[in-house]
Amino acid sequence: MTVKKFKLCELVRDLEVEIQGDENCVIEGVTTLEDGKSGHLTFLNNPKYKKYLSDTTAAAVVLTRKEAEDCPVTAVICRDPYFTYAKMASYFLPELEREEGVHPSASVHSSAQVDKTASIAPQAVISKNACIGAHVVIGGGCFIGEGVVIGDHTVLHANVTLYHDVKIGKHVIISSGTVIGADGFGIAKHAGVWHKVPQLGTVIIEDDVEIGANCAIDRGAIGDTIIAKGVKLDNLIQVGHNVQIGAYTAIAGCVGIAGSATIGKNCLIGGGAGIAGHIEIGDDIMITGMTAVTKSLRNPGIYSSGVGGVVTNKEWQKTSARLHRLNSLTEKVKKLEQLIKEMIN
Amino acid sequence: MTVKKFKLCELVRDLEVEIQGDENCVIEGVTTLEDGKSGHLTFLNNPKYKKYLSDTTAAAVVLTRKEAEDCPVTAVICRDPYFTYAKMASYFLPELEREEGVHPSASVHSSAQVDKTASIAPQAVISKNACIGAHVVIGGGCFIGEGVVIGDHTVLHANVTLYHDVKIGKHVIISSGTVIGADGFGIAKHAGVWHKVPQLGTVIIEDDVEIGANCAIDRGAIGDTIIAKGVKLDNLIQVGHNVQIGAYTAIAGCVGIAGSATIGKNCLIGGGAGIAGHIEIGDDIMITGMTAVTKSLRNPGIYSSGVGGVVTNKEWQKTSARLHRLNSLTEKVKKLEQLIKEMIN
Amino acid sequence: MTVKKFKLCELVRDLEVEIQGDENCVIEGVTTLEDGKSGHLTFLNNPKYKKYLSDTTAAAVVLTRKEAEDCPVTAVICRDPYFTYAKMASYFLPELEREEGVHPSASVHSSAQVDKTASIAPQAVISKNACIGAHVVIGGGCFIGEGVVIGDHTVLHANVTLYHDVKIGKHVIISSGTVIGADGFGIAKHAGVWHKVPQLGTVIIEDDVEIGANCAIDRGAIGDTIIAKGVKLDNLIQVGHNVQIGAYTAIAGCVGIAGSATIGKNCLIGGGAGIAGHIEIGDDIMITGMTAVTKSLRNPGIYSSGVGGVVTNKEWQKTSARLHRLNSLTEKVKKLEQLIKEMIN
Repeated sequence: MTVKKFKLCELVRDLEVEIQGDENCVIEGVTTLEDGKSGHLTFLNNPKYKKYLSDTTAAAVVLTRKEAEDCPVTAVICRDPYFTYAKMASYFLPELEREEGVHPSASVHSSAQVDKTASIAPQAVISKNACIGAHVVIGGGCFIGEGVVIGDHTVLHANVTLYHDVKIGKHVIISSGTVIGADGFGIAKHAGVWHKVPQLGTVIIEDDVEIGANCAIDRGAIGDTIIAKGVKLDNLIQVGHNVQIGAYTAIAGCVGIAGSATIGKNCLIGGGAGIAGHIEIGDDIMITGMTAVTKSLRNPGIYSSGVGGVVTNKEWQKTSARLHRLNSLTEKVKKLEQLIKEMIN
Repeated sequence: MTVKKFKLCELVRDLEVEIQGDENCVIEGVTTLEDGKSGHLTFLNNPKYKKYLSDTTAAAVVLTRKEAEDCPVTAVICRDPYFTYAKMASYFLPELEREEGVHPSASVHSSAQVDKTASIAPQAVISKNACIGAHVVIGGGCFIGEGVVIGDHTVLHANVTLYHDVKIGKHVIISSGTVIGADGFGIAKHAGVWHKVPQLGTVIIEDDVEIGANCAIDRGAIGDTIIAKGVKLDNLIQVGHNVQIGAYTAIAGCVGIAGSATIGKNCLIGGGAGIAGHIEIGDDIMITGMTAVTKSLRNPGIYSSGVGGVVTNKEWQKTSARLHRLNSLTEKVKKLEQLIKEMIN
Repeated sequence: MTVKKFKLCELVRDLEVEIQGDENCVIEGVTTLEDGKSGHLTFLNNPKYKKYLSDTTAAAVVLTRKEAEDCPVTAVICRDPYFTYAKMASYFLPELEREEGVHPSASVHSSAQVDKTASIAPQAVISKNACIGAHVVIGGGCFIGEGVVIGDHTVLHANVTLYHDVKIGKHVIISSGTVIGADGFGIAKHAGVWHKVPQLGTVIIEDDVEIGANCAIDRGAIGDTIIAKGVKLDNLIQVGHNVQIGAYTAIAGCVGIAGSATIGKNCLIGGGAGIAGHIEIGDDIMITGMTAVTKSLRNPGIYSSGVGGVVTNKEWQKTSARLHRLNSLTEKVKKLEQLIKEMIN
């Protein structure tokens, strides 16, 4: 990899920041406050890392005005350090090879429409009547099913699978291994045997959505599964048929969302949480990690399930045992109340 | 997509139903009771949706005789509405292109036997001595390992991976991204270092099984991992080595089943549940979502683990704290009992 | 498959064992104690299976000296039966076809360096400047990104995806469907909209690591995600950006590890566990299955979260209800204490 270098002032050209220190210092990459690689840029956002600020040896730190007085090196002062850092760091992204046009080893159906500015990598498959927009990148080994539509500037990394008729918006990013539009889990038991219920809807992914690796987003049974504008999904997430996820909601890894659940806008769902089917989660709701959401939640707020944090297994066994004796404790208290009542009267 | 249209009476030709209303009404797709698209078919199965029946504007509703009197439109009366709907809806499945024969971009080993009615899509790999039955569909980018046998009428969607010697029955459906026959998690620590334990069995998938997207079903260590006839698996499910799943069991998304667990027939396992290794779950057992099954369960019934549903994070913190003070509460009650005993005597 | 046959003494040639019985007996495969296939080898390691020893009809059993006296057939006596069995069983692994060189259907960039002893299977993609070591096996449909380096004797099964600049050590095994080096979940909200935070690090997988199927291991945001020497990961595991996993740690299926968590050496993490971001887990720590680790753990030991094992759903509902009435129980006890205090005074 070639090393990229920029003057600090070049990195902040379009950003609302104030520089305290040397705006001409040369930046050649990013670092953490703790590591503090010389010649590198870092930021302070999580207060947990504040303790490393005074000793940092990074070239420059992106932070708020309040923190700037403790900054021993050049400071990039702004209101929103994480966002500002993100914009500055993007200059250091590597330029990966993405040739326009269709790689000779890819398989493109004669009826598919591929914009001439799109890049179709080796071994990809583009099926009948698929429609690939301008500047789209289809990674190696991707499978694009019949009638799929992909909007401009969308990027599919290698080995993504889109089933027939899935609709992907503009500026969407889909990571490797993710499967969109497989049949939902629709089964009807009849005379002791499961029968498949046809899954006749599709999946609609709106603009600016990003989806992590190895997710599974099923097509609707009736009507569509919809991931609204700007939603961000981490890895290994299951989205059942006919789920709707509202705009700008972010969902961490390993979350499972059962069929026909509706999730509002601007929600945050922690890793490993499970959302039951056919329930509604309103806007601006935060679910902590590994919570089981078994009923609808309508008021904004933070929700959790289960009880107790992590403890030694020994303590855990004691607490579990005590919990299962709660009934007898309750009975004892009742008896005491009765006895005392009698004594008083 | 071309719109398909059928007369209602055509859709019920082989089904035991009674039509109340216009058997010649034209149906051009499916809808929900609530949406009630005109010209579309719907059904009533989950009582939760009964409230939408009286106002539906769908063309026809599949339901039981008891519900039929409240149906404002044409009613398809039957004993099992969800099953009947499933059969009727299947007329609306799109006809996807599946050409018989091997696509020129696929790679088929000279020793493999591929039935001439099978369809091998672009970029698929069929390895040495594999045997592909009649009317089988191998999706784009699938990898079929050495010596794999696939029964008639089985469908593998794009990017499925089958390791060597895996055996797949007839009329099986496997969704994209699923991996069958990878080595089980067999490791032996010796002198501080993990050594691989050879995984010498394979995986047997019996007839009529359906497996969702991005599942991982490991091959047996000694003997085989077996998924019996008619089992239905949702997405992102982990099945460890030497697991056995009994006929007609259905398992929802994100379930993990550790090695050598045995699950009976006709079980229902909720999403996100975890099954410990080397335990036995009998027939007709239902496990609720996100339950940790840590011991064998032999009697039919519904089982759960943990405590408490979803609450606000504030309440959750209070309950957790209280729980960890249960011990002192128990001590206090003991002391009170003692005191009162003394007072009485 | 051709049946392989060995004399027992051939299988133990380099191992420290003592044979009690017929060292020339012919072994043609492996079996369990319980099944006891004649002519097959088995072992006794888990005491749970001891009950099957006295009746086994296997040809030979690998076990400790203590157990040998109850062995009705030929005994292979050693200190570490599971390890010894693993070494002996490896003779029965099938010889799968792995031709040296690049399959004509694979797509290898002209700038990539592929050792002449490496095997590149059909439909694989090797991108610009990638470097593939000696005796490496790249399975069918794998995607190897720009600048990836893969050490000698490493095996990638079919349909693995490695993003640009990922570094893989020697003697590593990666199972199908696994994605290494996708962007971490770095997003910054600004004016109501999520912005992508560039993920500028990569993933380093050290020597002797084994990774199961359909895992997702994200590249670092700043600096790298590191999986140290000899780590063993099961299937469907999520490893967030900048996670570090110490040498010889083993992690069971469906575990989620959030970004910047650090896990020590020689840890054991049970299936379905979740590790919060930015926490530290020390060396020699065992986490039981489905535990939520929400804080750093520094002392060696066994840890768990939640309470209560699996019970009938009815019992579960009772316990949950009682738990939520803990507050009123606590209040009652306080009142009783007050009353008794008054009575005594």
